[in-house]
Amino acid sequence: MPLPPETESHQSTRLSRRRLFGYTAAGVGGALAGAGAVSAATALGGEPPADAVGRRTVAFHGAHQAGVTTPAQARAVFVGFGLRQGIDAAAVGRLMRLWTQDAAALTAGRAATADPAPALAERPAGLTVTFGFGPGLFTAIGRPEAVPAGFVPAPEFTIDRLDARWTGGDLLVQVCADDSLAVAHAVRVLVVGARPFASVRWQQSGFLPHAGVAPGATPRNLMGQVDGTANPAPENGLDEVVWSADGWLAGGTTMILRRIRMDLDTWDRVAPESQERAIGRRLSDGAPLSGGAERDTPDYAVRDHHGKLVIPADAHVRRASEQANGPGSGRILRRGYSYDDGVDATGQADCGLLFAAYQARFDSQFLPIQRRLAELDALNAWTTPIGSAVFAIPPGCQEGGWIGQGLLG
Amino acid sequence: MPLPPETESHQSTRLSRRRLFGYTAAGVGGALAGAGAVSAATALGGEPPADAVGRRTVAFHGAHQAGVTTPAQARAVFVGFGLRQGIDAAAVGRLMRLWTQDAAALTAGRAATADPAPALAERPAGLTVTFGFGPGLFTAIGRPEAVPAGFVPAPEFTIDRLDARWTGGDLLVQVCADDSLAVAHAVRVLVVGARPFASVRWQQSGFLPHAGVAPGATPRNLMGQVDGTANPAPENGLDEVVWSADGWLAGGTTMILRRIRMDLDTWDRVAPESQERAIGRRLSDGAPLSGGAERDTPDYAVRDHHGKLVIPADAHVRRASEQANGPGSGRILRRGYSYDDGVDATGQADCGLLFAAYQARFDSQFLPIQRRLAELDALNAWTTPIGSAVFAIPPGCQEGGWIGQGLLG
Ligand code: HEM
Ligand code: HEM
Repeated sequence: MPLPPETESHQSTRLSRRRLFGYTAAGVGGALAGAGAVSAATALGGEPPADAVGRRTVAFHGAHQAGVTTPAQARAVFVGFGLRQGIDAAAVGRLMRLWTQDAAALTAGRAATADPAPALAERPAGLTVTFGFGPGLFTAIGRPEAVPAGFVPAPEFTIDRLDARWTGGDLLVQVCADDSLAVAHAVRVLVVGARPFASVRWQQSGFLPHAGVAPGATPRNLMGQVDGTANPAPENGLDEVVWSADGWLAGGTTMILRRIRMDLDTWDRVAPESQERAIGRRLSDGAPLSGGAERDTPDYAVRDHHGKLVIPADAHVRRASEQANGPGSGRILRRGYSYDDGVDATGQADCGLLFAAYQARFDSQFLPIQRRLAELDALNAWTTPIGSAVFAIPPGCQEGGWIGQGLLG
Repeated sequence: MPLPPETESHQSTRLSRRRLFGYTAAGVGGALAGAGAVSAATALGGEPPADAVGRRTVAFHGAHQAGVTTPAQARAVFVGFGLRQGIDAAAVGRLMRLWTQDAAALTAGRAATADPAPALAERPAGLTVTFGFGPGLFTAIGRPEAVPAGFVPAPEFTIDRLDARWTGGDLLVQVCADDSLAVAHAVRVLVVGARPFASVRWQQSGFLPHAGVAPGATPRNLMGQVDGTANPAPENGLDEVVWSADGWLAGGTTMILRRIRMDLDTWDRVAPESQERAIGRRLSDGAPLSGGAERDTPDYAVRDHHGKLVIPADAHVRRASEQANGPGSGRILRRGYSYDDGVDATGQADCGLLFAAYQARFDSQFLPIQRRLAELDALNAWTTPIGSAVFAIPPGCQEGGWIGQGLLG
């Protein structure tokens, strides 16, 4: 018996986890201004119900797909598919209609069409499902001219050691929620639905802090760093960074998923001061080495009394940031997840970051940053990209429509 | 800057997740009677703090190791180690002293000795660490006579298709918490600490519903069944089922971890009524097919109007339960986790149950149940055990002592 879930509009969900878990920090007021409907319990001023995490829903329908600017849930599974031989535009359209219908149901806490285990749909826990199209899809549907401007296959960078097991793909399904069972169930339904059309090439699973663990704090990654500070926010260009205005992709975006292994054994041998210089931020609280607090703007010019740059020339943030590299040097929305898959067949730890970035235009926003980092980034000594895949993320749809309709309809 | 965590005594933690997340069901009052100290916020009658999930601690020291009768946290990682050549009793003792010290610190929300990322220790999220000794350890330390009575290596059953990758091991580390980062960090510290002594043979990761998702409800597994109903409770023989009174193991227990793959593709093709008969309980709410509610006692004698047993002869619960098979037919504490590791190299879904069971005596409590199930259990059509490992779980220790001291000290 599914409970009536508390639905929140897409736009309102940027703050909903914070609301549910008591985060009230400076700056929230401003961001709240644009918010839409809020969850029933909090709107009434009451305490959230004990199962608020499980019952929470994020609206599926809207101008944009959910799961991009939606505040990152605690669990993510990314699935890359290869299209089967002979699947054409009409067939992809049938798949996208089915997937849209199932995703709309599951994210609302309802069973999917022919759901094999309807009870597992009862607790969506903030479930979002986000679909994407890889470069090969445009060939398969005979529409090479529909490839979005600047959506080029990611080159293999000199730092890359890409494994075919984690690379490429014609279709992406990104499933996020605050509970693993909701994610596992949705992935299963969508994978089974795709069978006649596409088969799974890879499946990658990641995590962030769970509800109630460290509300309001920027998460830490497995290297121990505060990771996620300098991301575009609504008051700070988020929409322009993320959403495309180009043809059928208008209201959509592009996404790159890089599986970046961390060599924690060598990293852990490095003195904390050197670890901090590799990033350019403090380990304790994520503040820039130039001083201040986590959210203060770094000063890339400041030098110590020996005349050395306090944020070194090869520090990750200096190499990555638009501030240090000038206007137009690239802005992206990062929404990464830690992964820890234990030990591989050779006994090596397989853990690191599922780096996911979204940008309106892939070539002029993501690529310049990645090129700079591949050329020089202190962090490269302890990180190795072992997987890479890019997808065009179609815009959202309204009820009655389906994801990808603008391209395939 | 670690926050002062709210410490709860071991005994009190049986209900702490429920307390924090608002579970108040019939029967809780009775179980409460034996509880010890409660967490600060709830004792004061206030609301739990927003980061209560992250700050919660479970006492490490006590008569028993935590992580056995402790209510199951949302995440578990089980690590099986092989001892290196030449590691003798003295060396294992050194490892256990180090592991005890690190586990005591981490479970209290403090950094471990030489912690490579102290910041990752700040949010223990109800962390427990449980150590175990595999059969090979007794040979390695030259103490074959110290093998606990009835602690025999698990035979390979006819239903088993054991993969060496998930089987055996001389040492177990079981790490559970309500957050993946706390688990990953503790596993890393303990694996690195073990390096001179032992290497990782396997690492398995599982999940249950997260805090706030479905508080008070028995979890569902990936087949969609309510799984965990008929487990011994404090008022119902828990201590006698679990804790050994035998020699150095007194206050300890034995544990078996079986990795049981589910074939969801064939399971999903089965009609719900047949799925229910395979278990002997309803899918909707886990109630026995003989009637009543989830917690009501099954009636194994009742027949339908055709004269057929309502809970069939091969139903999983009939074959497993002590009630149906007579006194002495075996009682165990199950504390399993779902696992979902995506697709393996052949494209097959690798998901199922990390079945973990604890019993004072392995041969007379676990083995009869498993033998019956291997012989006849409707569920076997859709499940395949692919990993198996058994461990003696030493008793707990007080401050200043260490786990395994009674055997190795
Ligand atoms: C394992 C790999 C990586 C790790 C551990 C990592 C870690 C970090 C950390 C700790 C920060 C500073 C805090 C913050 O602003 O979030 C940061 C910032 C950033 N990173 Fe990464 N990063 C990784 C890979 C990448 C990649 C592949 C890219 C893009 C190609 C990237 C782009 C950025 C950007 C744009 C910033 C913000 C810079 C600013 O404007 O201040 N990172 N990263
Ligand atoms: C993937 C494999 C398995 C699944 C899906 C499964 C599922 C279930 C379910 C749904 C129940 C009924 C609800 C409950 O009381 O928890 C149950 C009960 C039980 N299972 Fe399993 N089980 C599995 C493997 C095993 C194994 C390997 C054993 C022991 C060798 C076992 C022993 C028991 C016992 C003792 C009960 C309680 C019976 C009673 O007293 O009513 N199960 N199981």
